[in-house]
Amino acid sequence: MELKQLPAEIQLIDALTSVFQKSPDQLNERHGSDAELIQLGNGTVLACTADAIVEEIEFGLYDDPYLIGRMLVTVNLSDLAAVGATPIGLLLSQSLPTSLAQDYTMALQAGIAEACRAYNTFILGGDTSVGKQFHVGATAIGTVAADGVMSRLGMKSGDVLYTTAPLGSGSAYAFDKLLMAAANGIDYQPTARLKEGQLLGRFASACIDTSDGFWAALDELGRLNDVGFHLQQTLEAVLHPDALAMVQQNQLPAWMLLAGPHGEFELLFTVPEEKETAFLQAAEKENWKPLRIGRVSEGPMVQYEYKAQSYHIDTHLIRQSFEQSEGDLQKYMTKLKQLHHRFFL
Amino acid sequence: MELKQLPAEIQLIDALTSVFQKSPDQLNERHGSDAELIQLGNGTVLACTADAIVEEIEFGLYDDPYLIGRMLVTVNLSDLAAVGATPIGLLLSQSLPTSLAQDYTMALQAGIAEACRAYNTFILGGDTSVGKQFHVGATAIGTVAADGVMSRLGMKSGDVLYTTAPLGSGSAYAFDKLLMAAANGIDYQPTARLKEGQLLGRFASACIDTSDGFWAALDELGRLNDVGFHLQQTLEAVLHPDALAMVQQNQLPAWMLLAGPHGEFELLFTVPEEKETAFLQAAEKENWKPLRIGRVSEGPMVQYEYKAQSYHIDTHLIRQSFEQSEGDLQKYMTKLKQLHHRFFL
Repeated sequence: MELKQLPAEIQLIDALTSVFQKSPDQLNERHGSDAELIQLGNGTVLACTADAIVEEIEFGLYDDPYLIGRMLVTVNLSDLAAVGATPIGLLLSQSLPTSLAQDYTMALQAGIAEACRAYNTFILGGDTSVGKQFHVGATAIGTVAADGVMSRLGMKSGDVLYTTAPLGSGSAYAFDKLLMAAANGIDYQPTARLKEGQLLGRFASACIDTSDGFWAALDELGRLNDVGFHLQQTLEAVLHPDALAMVQQNQLPAWMLLAGPHGEFELLFTVPEEKETAFLQAAEKENWKPLRIGRVSEGPMVQYEYKAQSYHIDTHLIRQSFEQSEGDLQKYMTKLKQLHHRFFL
Repeated sequence: MELKQLPAEIQLIDALTSVFQKSPDQLNERHGSDAELIQLGNGTVLACTADAIVEEIEFGLYDDPYLIGRMLVTVNLSDLAAVGATPIGLLLSQSLPTSLAQDYTMALQAGIAEACRAYNTFILGGDTSVGKQFHVGATAIGTVAADGVMSRLGMKSGDVLYTTAPLGSGSAYAFDKLLMAAANGIDYQPTARLKEGQLLGRFASACIDTSDGFWAALDELGRLNDVGFHLQQTLEAVLHPDALAMVQQNQLPAWMLLAGPHGEFELLFTVPEEKETAFLQAAEKENWKPLRIGRVSEGPMVQYEYKAQSYHIDTHLIRQSFEQSEGDLQKYMTKLKQLHHRFFL
């Protein structure tokens, strides 16, 4: 058996943050929730999160300024959604080189503004400097009632595993954009699941968003809760239409279109069995059809039922393969194909 | 008479933010306070602000990572101080290139951690990415009782003008570092005036920090409140010892050591005459000696009493001179010397 290392990003953050003292009012452990949770008193918890769009721009995944603006708002609000919070608003942190075309800058602001309108939230302020470098970051702030707070922790073996909607559109977009020169022109429009998150606060035992993709999210939940998962739904049925088209077009196995580290910002969550009926009734009232994909198991592995056979998927190996590829997507695809043999053949 | 233009930075921010809708819960107008102020209900106001250390690094003003870390915390908390808030904590937004030496990265984190300890506040979380670019930003969040909130607006002719402590250490440090190759090795250690700000919430009619220097702060207050100022204190007596030493060493007029756009993070505030006695008593209890420097006038100019003569200082021209110098400090010094003739001779 291999010794499992923590993912490199988590190791880095742990090393950097080891010198910081934790606030006595902070409810979550580091990595324990998508947003930071701070006790405000009066039964209210402050939820806050900071995310910049850095790697996506450097890798050429996002080059449309309107998309960058929209995603800046979405990635931050998605973290609030995963803890069940209602946003108060966002603060921007932008550094805009003078070399940027005015059209580009204005399209970026338009993307931000349009996303805020769609989510019924607001830009509260921020910091805009005219630096040499281009930088686009934001902080989202919200509140959640103390009895409606979700974190990544709390699931138990037997809980039912759900996602808010089909998955893989993030991987499909990245595959098309970076490996196929955007031949399919996929319209990537993920939505932060704020309403669903607020409803889930009453039912879910744990929740995370799929910002880093499905397998990474599952790996994180498994590690933090010391559990495994039993996937009882055929993965093709879990795929977003864009991801399914990519699978068929490129003769790829379905699980691979969930392995991209660029996610779709759905929520992945668990519901205790005794709350499932009430949860589904509440969801139906909101015309929302959550997607049931399996159960929490004793673990530690992910077991996948496919055509009456049972396979083991090692989510840690998927994550490790991406890290070892160091941003080279061709290399990552090769490693994923090796993993496919290991998992299924 | 010249047509007064808004400072370029304010014009840029206004252009960019014109597409954003304002939150109905937001109490402040844009530029109307150092931190954003959001009604939370229950008599509590959320204060939040975002500031990155960009220009200071690009211009070579800060090259010590420990100082950068400390300043990242200080600049953000200073904005909370200026609205009277008590910090909940900060979120970091860091992009650290792999080319950075580990010592450098760890000294940066140590500076952040040490400043948090000194201010008795906390890093709540944030976003750390390993990008190609170096970026260091933060968001500070705090709360303030609705009846203790300060903004830049609210002063009236006759109010008394104060600063928390002597000014000019920011200019002195910049002058020494950038024009004299750090010959004086000034130990620049500004403090966010959190305790003073919290006390001021009960007395001040308006408040701003001197993050952009004294004259810029005065210009901002004058413009926003449609007032002028009458400086009744000799400027030498307002200078921080480091600034006074620089004045003497370089044969410069005192006002010039307040003209740097790099401030010292003191608070500049006004107190209505009828509250002055109570304010001074409250300050004395805290062993704090605020520095009385003048009064609010009908305006629009700043009138300066010096050796029984009265001079007019046009703060807008000082600010405009810096903008027109486009980062060239020698050019700025030349322009300031021209202004000296215009104001005093």
